[in-house]
Amino acid sequence: MMPLKSKAPTPEAVREPLHFYFDFISPYGYFASLRIDELANRHARTVQWHPMLLGVSVMKVMGLKPLLDTPLKGPYTLRDVQRYARLHGIHLGRDFAAPPTHPRTMARAFCWAAKHHPMASIALAKALLHAYWVFGTDLSAPESLDGIALPAAIRADELIEAVQGEEAARLLRAEVRSSLAAGIFGSPTIVVDGEAFWGIDKFSEIDHWLATGGW
Amino acid sequence: MMPLKSKAPTPEAVREPLHFYFDFISPYGYFASLRIDELANRHARTVQWHPMLLGVSVMKVMGLKPLLDTPLKGPYTLRDVQRYARLHGIHLGRDFAAPPTHPRTMARAFCWAAKHHPMASIALAKALLHAYWVFGTDLSAPESLDGIALPAAIRADELIEAVQGEEAARLLRAEVRSSLAAGIFGSPTIVVDGEAFWGIDKFSEIDHWLATGGW
Repeated sequence: MMPLKSKAPTPEAVREPLHFYFDFISPYGYFASLRIDELANRHARTVQWHPMLLGVSVMKVMGLKPLLDTPLKGPYTLRDVQRYARLHGIHLGRDFAAPPTHPRTMARAFCWAAKHHPMASIALAKALLHAYWVFGTDLSAPESLDGIALPAAIRADELIEAVQGEEAARLLRAEVRSSLAAGIFGSPTIVVDGEAFWGIDKFSEIDHWLATGGW
Repeated sequence: MMPLKSKAPTPEAVREPLHFYFDFISPYGYFASLRIDELANRHARTVQWHPMLLGVSVMKVMGLKPLLDTPLKGPYTLRDVQRYARLHGIHLGRDFAAPPTHPRTMARAFCWAAKHHPMASIALAKALLHAYWVFGTDLSAPESLDGIALPAAIRADELIEAVQGEEAARLLRAEVRSSLAAGIFGSPTIVVDGEAFWGIDKFSEIDHWLATGGW
């Protein structure tokens, strides 16, 4: 006879999710999106995805120039992004030096889906990131969402309508406010039990933090 | 009978040194100074040390605020520096949130020593960093150099005179110009065979680059 399982939550069940902050137009955010599940799974964690807007945190709040427009750092970043992609076998079909024409479309789509199709919203985020970064799809026009492979639960026509509506814009504003209130400024930032780690290069430190419970 | 050795240089002998750019007042630069020898030794490389001035690269050339004065990023950096120090068992005797009063003294001392006492200049850099970061010694006044443990080859009185002289200032200006010409903007930056890696978090990537010859 199998022993009865206790109803008390296991330690795994009460663990906080990892909070993954990223901007859809950040190549480092995209790179992190490809590794965050594996990192979380290894430590029996889930992941909560939070779109942010570098245009707000970096430019408005921090008063900085866009990264690629910054002397010295811009050219370095271009090189570093390509170097990272080569090392990890990531095909970048997008010229990431070209400014995105409507950077909020993807973030609004995600926020709307997180409310109305929560089980499909991360799959949507991954589909958007893949279309944008691997295929180089121009997602500036809402109609362009019709051309990408969406999760089954989400219809292209409702998504196209949603990203143009006030609700999606409002949900994104709330996400952005909450990321700023949490002190988040860069993409990716991963928050583990209240501890923030900024940058794609922090994955091994986060892994160590999760394994040890911090130091 | 032993075979005669070829006079052709071995691969090791012709390998470029690692170029290590750092600002004495950068905690991440200090952290890197503690690991750069081990990294280089593992790959049979030497290290050439290059002081740089964040006050020039970040503020004048890039047009950015000092890191700790930047909203969101400032508080994050304070926390990240302390977290790194704890993880690596580094005692920081300095309140690194307080602005250094004369940040160029150490860099000038190094540049002067690199010319006049080249065999002792890296030992001097390490002595200065240790005094500044571990003991929290205020090195704003040239006379304060008298209180620190200097390499045997370098007399305190000649160093104190040197850092106030035009030659040390000129040598530092040349180093700063050359770091900017090389595209260096942050501390630490490590250049491996022409490839620049910025940030203390890049050590494992540099290690991989050195082991594989790049990708």
